[in-house]
Amino acid sequence: MAGNTFGKLFTVSTFGESHGPALGCIVDGCPPGLPLSSADLQKDLDRRKPGTSRYTTQRREADEVEILSGVFEGKTTGTPIGLLIRNTDQRSRDYDKIKEQFRPAHADYTYQQKYGFRDYRGGGRSSARETAMRVAAGSIAKIALAQPSFGGVKVRGYLSQLGPIVLDRSGFDWDEIENNAFFWPNASQIPELEAYMQKLSKDGDSIGAKVNVQADNVPVGWGEPVFDRLDADIAHGLMSINAVKGVEIGAGFAAVSQRGTEHRDEITSQGFLSNQAGGVLGGISSGQSITAALALKPTSSLRLPGRSVDIQGNDIEVITTGRHDPCVGIRATPIAEAMLALVLADHAMRHRAQNADVKQGTPIIPAGRA
Amino acid sequence: MAGNTFGKLFTVSTFGESHGPALGCIVDGCPPGLPLSSADLQKDLDRRKPGTSRYTTQRREADEVEILSGVFEGKTTGTPIGLLIRNTDQRSRDYDKIKEQFRPAHADYTYQQKYGFRDYRGGGRSSARETAMRVAAGSIAKIALAQPSFGGVKVRGYLSQLGPIVLDRSGFDWDEIENNAFFWPNASQIPELEAYMQKLSKDGDSIGAKVNVQADNVPVGWGEPVFDRLDADIAHGLMSINAVKGVEIGAGFAAVSQRGTEHRDEITSQGFLSNQAGGVLGGISSGQSITAALALKPTSSLRLPGRSVDIQGNDIEVITTGRHDPCVGIRATPIAEAMLALVLADHAMRHRAQNADVKQGTPIIPAGRA
Amino acid sequence: MAGNTFGKLFTVSTFGESHGPALGCIVDGCPPGLPLSSADLQKDLDRRKPGTSRYTTQRREADEVEILSGVFEGKTTGTPIGLLIRNTDQRSRDYDKIKEQFRPAHADYTYQQKYGFRDYRGGGRSSARETAMRVAAGSIAKIALAQPSFGGVKVRGYLSQLGPIVLDRSGFDWDEIENNAFFWPNASQIPELEAYMQKLSKDGDSIGAKVNVQADNVPVGWGEPVFDRLDADIAHGLMSINAVKGVEIGAGFAAVSQRGTEHRDEITSQGFLSNQAGGVLGGISSGQSITAALALKPTSSLRLPGRSVDIQGNDIEVITTGRHDPCVGIRATPIAEAMLALVLADHAMRHRAQNADVKQGTPIIPAGRA
Amino acid sequence: MAGNTFGKLFTVSTFGESHGPALGCIVDGCPPGLPLSSADLQKDLDRRKPGTSRYTTQRREADEVEILSGVFEGKTTGTPIGLLIRNTDQRSRDYDKIKEQFRPAHADYTYQQKYGFRDYRGGGRSSARETAMRVAAGSIAKIALAQPSFGGVKVRGYLSQLGPIVLDRSGFDWDEIENNAFFWPNASQIPELEAYMQKLSKDGDSIGAKVNVQADNVPVGWGEPVFDRLDADIAHGLMSINAVKGVEIGAGFAAVSQRGTEHRDEITSQGFLSNQAGGVLGGISSGQSITAALALKPTSSLRLPGRSVDIQGNDIEVITTGRHDPCVGIRATPIAEAMLALVLADHAMRHRAQNADVKQGTPIIPAGRA
Repeated sequence: MAGNTFGKLFTVSTFGESHGPALGCIVDGCPPGLPLSSADLQKDLDRRKPGTSRYTTQRREADEVEILSGVFEGKTTGTPIGLLIRNTDQRSRDYDKIKEQFRPAHADYTYQQKYGFRDYRGGGRSSARETAMRVAAGSIAKIALAQPSFGGVKVRGYLSQLGPIVLDRSGFDWDEIENNAFFWPNASQIPELEAYMQKLSKDGDSIGAKVNVQADNVPVGWGEPVFDRLDADIAHGLMSINAVKGVEIGAGFAAVSQRGTEHRDEITSQGFLSNQAGGVLGGISSGQSITAALALKPTSSLRLPGRSVDIQGNDIEVITTGRHDPCVGIRATPIAEAMLALVLADHAMRHRAQNADVKQGTPIIPAGRA
Repeated sequence: MAGNTFGKLFTVSTFGESHGPALGCIVDGCPPGLPLSSADLQKDLDRRKPGTSRYTTQRREADEVEILSGVFEGKTTGTPIGLLIRNTDQRSRDYDKIKEQFRPAHADYTYQQKYGFRDYRGGGRSSARETAMRVAAGSIAKIALAQPSFGGVKVRGYLSQLGPIVLDRSGFDWDEIENNAFFWPNASQIPELEAYMQKLSKDGDSIGAKVNVQADNVPVGWGEPVFDRLDADIAHGLMSINAVKGVEIGAGFAAVSQRGTEHRDEITSQGFLSNQAGGVLGGISSGQSITAALALKPTSSLRLPGRSVDIQGNDIEVITTGRHDPCVGIRATPIAEAMLALVLADHAMRHRAQNADVKQGTPIIPAGRA
Repeated sequence: MAGNTFGKLFTVSTFGESHGPALGCIVDGCPPGLPLSSADLQKDLDRRKPGTSRYTTQRREADEVEILSGVFEGKTTGTPIGLLIRNTDQRSRDYDKIKEQFRPAHADYTYQQKYGFRDYRGGGRSSARETAMRVAAGSIAKIALAQPSFGGVKVRGYLSQLGPIVLDRSGFDWDEIENNAFFWPNASQIPELEAYMQKLSKDGDSIGAKVNVQADNVPVGWGEPVFDRLDADIAHGLMSINAVKGVEIGAGFAAVSQRGTEHRDEITSQGFLSNQAGGVLGGISSGQSITAALALKPTSSLRLPGRSVDIQGNDIEVITTGRHDPCVGIRATPIAEAMLALVLADHAMRHRAQNADVKQGTPIIPAGRA
Repeated sequence: MAGNTFGKLFTVSTFGESHGPALGCIVDGCPPGLPLSSADLQKDLDRRKPGTSRYTTQRREADEVEILSGVFEGKTTGTPIGLLIRNTDQRSRDYDKIKEQFRPAHADYTYQQKYGFRDYRGGGRSSARETAMRVAAGSIAKIALAQPSFGGVKVRGYLSQLGPIVLDRSGFDWDEIENNAFFWPNASQIPELEAYMQKLSKDGDSIGAKVNVQADNVPVGWGEPVFDRLDADIAHGLMSINAVKGVEIGAGFAAVSQRGTEHRDEITSQGFLSNQAGGVLGGISSGQSITAALALKPTSSLRLPGRSVDIQGNDIEVITTGRHDPCVGIRATPIAEAMLALVLADHAMRHRAQNADVKQGTPIIPAGRA
């Protein structure tokens, strides 16, 4: 209820501050019998890890995750899975000077006012460091989704825009994403991205970005009508990621200027002919791929001075030193994948709780077309 | 858990199908002592009501709401408020021919597959008729928010784009919104909108739209960190409205190409200098106005034939006769207001549950600036 | 969150006051495809209905239930089921004199203090009249539980003690329960019960009672470890019934003076040899019958004067006229059955949500033995 | 939803197995600004700790708790509090022989059937070792309850029956409870208890017990009507403790044979004249002390052989060696206190979320009388 738990049946509850002793989470409701080791989680954690490229924060964290419970002889037991990552590179002294300052566009001011005081070290609980546990939990969700009884769902993501540079989809290649520091699926644009980031770094400024996520093989029928529509829960999950300012499903904002004849995905006995809907009709998965996009604001921590006030309300000028991503959108890709995976695993279980007895005859149309 | 309840402390649970005997809801957790009569609810219901203009469905529903509980001697008692609207204009016979058909871009196919069979009359539970109860519940939330202890919050909305026609903000006037059939805050553009809709109607096609909602006087401090951020719950609420494909907070997708120096809202002792954030920092309200926008897809029910399959998987052609809004976005305005009000009332209560004892000293900066 | 909803997956949310226009509820999460008509609900409602014997309140209520949604062509659709019962025999004038009085052992004082004012007519929301909706919802749970996929669970209850009169189990006969006004499973004791109640009525006093409930055919595996143990949720459900002061599972308080060798239910390849556990081990059903008991306090509404205070704190003497059950425990039997059925249906769904893929080999021991 | 979280606003979620690497929990929703250190938690943990007397298990665990988050500069921040206790004395080898056996009256059989396999070491998740985290979380709840804004509530408990030995209330002394190994409030009965336990130990048998808990200074108004009555949530919390088979509020099962004139607590301008209700009327606290009792079954782990089956269903004889409490009821006292404190802290916050604006005039009657 205090906002640190996500999901209803497959849930993750996180704790931990940027400069506290540790981050941790409990993943509860996971089906028993799934293969799970800390190495499985480490793979996605390493994709999100700071300090891996010159375009991300230089904070050095091993982000080594320990499984404390819920796994026995290499398999999940059905009981809660406790995960722990110790913070190692804390450097609290860097933050003493902002103790009494509110950095513009950060949560400093709102935390101070909400709680009456705040852990000012590195943003405390509001730091994106918290997302490490989302990624670890999301990896468990991905393992669940990959099971045959969950349809063998596969969740992937990529960066589709970095400031003014828009993905050229003519050269789209899923296999390129892990080959560059940008999660960018078109190798030919990497030099342009690198040049842009170097210029940005020289300017001391930051930039926004757009991330796309997609889930393939989602069975028809997941999602609840009305308030807990599958797309509404995806919007909740994606918008809960630090710095996100917008979420789209399928056609998204392009739908505003579409006509009905253009937007409606016609159906044939061979499957759907298009996917403007993003794989969701009436809040329920249609068997097509789920597609979503999210807008990330530029990093708020800047070397360039900005106007603000201190805790007494005096006008001041703030410069944020320290180690920060100039584009938080880049590392958001594995986080967005994690949130999509968590929503889907949760809805898979909600669906079967109610509808396990529904007889599905011959598939009416082929799954996953278009 | 089956998706028909919204909120954690101030909750609404709805029931009812398009062509069943009635729609209803329970609003639970409402503070005691608020003035409430059915006339208060009727005002917003009438704004959403079908059949009020030539641009909306011609279904005729009185949408008269009855309060069944939770109000005594004109005041809320703190116990659950039961609301009921009888369906009067049901005309089920209109729908017999679609009994075995899946209309493209409707929820017919997904409901059939999820539950094994479906109430095919007018879309059953997936019909936007369900949103009547959201509007009624939202009116109660608005009354709560208007109380001094809730900050005197005011929630309003308007249409900002209809297909190709974009709101000219130079002539923005809140007072114009209720003077036209489009919830449009610029009187000078009404003739253009009318002409567009007449042409559309002649074509038998439909069109998308964009709606903006705003809440003024929101106190600083509402919203929970991490998963239940205020903006994440707003995204959840808005995306749960029928036909919504995208949600933005503040700058929204424009943030993708913004630089940090452009996006960050600087602060002075006189208040914030801009509101790119949309009134939310780190998931918590900043004291600025909350601003959000949503994209609505064009109506799926069209006179123009579309390809689909029937329940046996045979290819067919579908024409949707009957009475439908050519632009569902128009009537979405009061619904979007309702969802925003419900999110805010809920978070107001969540905030004070935990933080009622937080001593707030002199306001650090003026509330609501920018 | 305001306490009017029960269950997590199979849920019931109720509304309505003793003397308001109507009682109602929403049953959400019910599996689709179950046969359901209002006649199915009426059977249990009639068992609980006031005015059916000289030993229960003479208030006359038809308690006719209307299904407003969630059922189509005689089957549940999987969408929320709205139920409504209009109050007909309200006689509010009877209650005017207690407007400013707090009746001892009633909720008058606590409601007044919690909410600042109260609907004083017949106890308002605190009246046991609210339990009509529990019974209706419980009937739906019973229908779900009777399905093969839920194990064909059967829920029954009976009165086992009325003041000083204890059930003679040597003449126990399930078939007798519906043949008398006491839900008493031993016909030979009925004259004694009748004589006791007549004497009590003459005295103007009331008496406590004990009710037992039992569920047969519950599959092994229902219930969650730790906090949401099956027995903990049963205790929650039963203790939430008006006037209940104690709950036992299996041996209950007798376990306090049992030795381990006496209490432990030994197991053989033919099944369990006893059922001290009441069918729950470690919070999870064992395949044996679930057995529970509840203690009900004597009715608080008495003709015999009692000391109290009025709303200004003045000492007064209170006499409760009106129509009241001299033993609320009698009519509690169908209510207790309903709560047990609701807990079981909920846990059946929670279990399969997580464990649908668990391969159950040959049953290790016969189900339901002992 | 998988049962490892307790509470709605002030919540605790636990993880950990008896012989896994660690136990842990997240306490979420705690108000900010409360003084908190690990030493505060250690006090209650030491009261529950194994190996402290000859009457409890000889397992040696330091049970040293580490606070991982949510506390900054000695005060709670309002963000989730992560707690960790490493298991040190695991001795898994002791349990290898029961790998394929189901111990009678343990959860071995039900876990195996629910999840398809189980962590058999020391009962895994079903071990009472899990309750260490309840005690730690309960200590935080106690600190919150002790604040003036929570009424300065004080929670205490004691053993009132051990097998045949019933507490002699004529010598009741709260101060004696911490002076003996039995949490027993009458020093004169300690020799009798010691003699009984020695005889029991010689027999190799175990015994049941009864624990009482009480909360003083609870303000009037806590608890929600209908399903989440304060007493129903207390019953849920207490029944969720390992080995509990019954729960009473106030008069409990004695109410079954009480007359209305005996049970009703009369009120005068000086306060209530008795407390048969146990401090709860209509599910809402009355301002009197909350009183509850719980029945604990005898320990199931016995040296005396018992009949059971193995995982293949073969008849076997089971002897439980290892280190076990001969009376689990003794150490249940601090656990029961913890659960009562958790329920009260949660309801305190639920109450003020909805009713923070209720004007309380002059108290109608003195609080806490009788």
